[in-house]
Amino acid sequence: MARALELARRGMATTHPNPRVGCVIVRGDRVVGEGYHQRAGEPHAERLALSQAGGAARGATAYVTLEPCCHTGRTPPCTDALLAAGIARVVAAMEDPDARVRGRGLEALRTAGVAVDVGLMEGEAARLNRGFISRAVRARPFVVAKAGISLDGRTALASGESQWITGAAARADVQRLRAVMGAVMTGTGTIRADDPRLTVHEGAPRQPLRVVVTSSLAIPPDARILAGDADLMVLTTTDGPHGDRLRASGAEVVAVGGAPGQVDLAAGLGALAARGVNDVLVEAGPTLLASLLDQGLIDELRLYVAPMLLGNGRPLADFTLAKLSGARAWRYDEVRSVGRDLRLILTPET
Amino acid sequence: MARALELARRGMATTHPNPRVGCVIVRGDRVVGEGYHQRAGEPHAERLALSQAGGAARGATAYVTLEPCCHTGRTPPCTDALLAAGIARVVAAMEDPDARVRGRGLEALRTAGVAVDVGLMEGEAARLNRGFISRAVRARPFVVAKAGISLDGRTALASGESQWITGAAARADVQRLRAVMGAVMTGTGTIRADDPRLTVHEGAPRQPLRVVVTSSLAIPPDARILAGDADLMVLTTTDGPHGDRLRASGAEVVAVGGAPGQVDLAAGLGALAARGVNDVLVEAGPTLLASLLDQGLIDELRLYVAPMLLGNGRPLADFTLAKLSGARAWRYDEVRSVGRDLRLILTPET
Repeated sequence: MARALELARRGMATTHPNPRVGCVIVRGDRVVGEGYHQRAGEPHAERLALSQAGGAARGATAYVTLEPCCHTGRTPPCTDALLAAGIARVVAAMEDPDARVRGRGLEALRTAGVAVDVGLMEGEAARLNRGFISRAVRARPFVVAKAGISLDGRTALASGESQWITGAAARADVQRLRAVMGAVMTGTGTIRADDPRLTVHEGAPRQPLRVVVTSSLAIPPDARILAGDADLMVLTTTDGPHGDRLRASGAEVVAVGGAPGQVDLAAGLGALAARGVNDVLVEAGPTLLASLLDQGLIDELRLYVAPMLLGNGRPLADFTLAKLSGARAWRYDEVRSVGRDLRLILTPET
Repeated sequence: MARALELARRGMATTHPNPRVGCVIVRGDRVVGEGYHQRAGEPHAERLALSQAGGAARGATAYVTLEPCCHTGRTPPCTDALLAAGIARVVAAMEDPDARVRGRGLEALRTAGVAVDVGLMEGEAARLNRGFISRAVRARPFVVAKAGISLDGRTALASGESQWITGAAARADVQRLRAVMGAVMTGTGTIRADDPRLTVHEGAPRQPLRVVVTSSLAIPPDARILAGDADLMVLTTTDGPHGDRLRASGAEVVAVGGAPGQVDLAAGLGALAARGVNDVLVEAGPTLLASLLDQGLIDELRLYVAPMLLGNGRPLADFTLAKLSGARAWRYDEVRSVGRDLRLILTPET
């Protein structure tokens, strides 16, 4: 299963909106077939492994990181392929949370006389597809908020100067992260302050969908995010003439409602899930970040902390707590050095 | 030498203003004597180890974490004792930076025919006595600034509420740190906001000197820092009637000059060194911290980062940088978990 997970990770940046899945077929002590899902529309991991195994699949065990599908999507059901090949036993790391599967794939195998086990290395398998699971179970993407901050929690100087707070290694790490996310989200404050492209470096197999949250639709016409080849989605409260201008420049404009000046963020995330976005990287300023935090919509905080003090600059998140007891508690999941900076990964304390 | 350093560490909280020193006497393969310095005025490590070794010291090797003294302080020179005992070889981790020694102890031993080596585990030995070394070499204590902050660099809410940002383990860690420092320093802002005692828990072998930096001398008469058994030193610009009031309550008031409203911090640290303070723990608010940072007077930053976001509260340090290129660079020396919090130790990038 560890090998199957390793294979699955090779699809990290390319399977969207599908899950990352790896499969290893073992007969006796010997691996007879391996495969992983590469891209939506292309064969699933099980089919690739079976095709490699050929006749050796008969009586063998298939280790697969996610329950095999039992429905016809862009490709036919994997359960049929496993049965046709004569697989004797299937070990799945976890059930497929997709409403069209949810145990029915395993059930079909059991009914046909295949020995089925589920739950081996389930935690790692679930982590690998946390976005796909979030979309299937919560109808919203898994949301990671990233920021580069100083030791005293600043993202920019009072003067606005903000480039290069974190080092080259941290910036490269963010590029790698962007490349595996379904979408990258920001707000108009960041577009005005930093004018980012939010694209992944050239040569990447795929560009994440770029998402701008804006109640005013006031994205400057020369903003760099309006150029570039990657798709752009604009989430707003109500559509308007500015929307037409943005559409004319190639953006998809989606009105999701909300109070005046406040895009309904939960609805916006729902719209992204409906479009097949499994995970979103938020690279936003203090206003959008504070709104997402306030509504409990951030599943993971990823802070790159530069070893410097910036004094009274732009804060990470712009909000005021009335009482300490009202502070949401997080938990350090991982702490590591990235170049001269420190990378903190936190998840909400449950 | 590792054992000698281990012994030296036992004097961590008690040798002030003397250095922490350990000594191990080895004859052949056998340890024949061990000792460490416990308290100023009491025997040095070498004498304790020699007395344990007795006649077995003749022809033996003495491992000592600091060059043996060659001058008569409150106790007679250790070099004499080593020679009298017939020690054949002395291995010292480092030279004693004290102006009265600085190699003269080792030279005296060499002249008398003792084999001398110096530099074994020097880095660890120097770290153990970084305060003593700072005072000897720079005529100022080693300055550690400590703060408990949120992920977004806040030490308190905008409402002022600040207790319990960090957890019990972090607070216990600070207590252990205070216990080994020569002095603990704060400013009047912190006294007004938090009213701390700055003492070490009962049962501690020693209380650090408490130091308040105040240009106005306006410490509220009912401030808890004015009570308590530990010594209190008040550093101010110019003395005055408020000074008499503070002296009456038992404080030592020292005027070190400075611009109006700005205590000369370098002079203040010099006054502390002159009083035998090797190391100072700064537990101060944004104003004093910013002044110390601005003048490059902080040798180590120790931040306890609680896994929470506090929004627009009290900042760690109150200053404004004009340009990012003007930010002083630090380096992460150590990062570890302390309970649910993270402890970051940083030193200036050289």
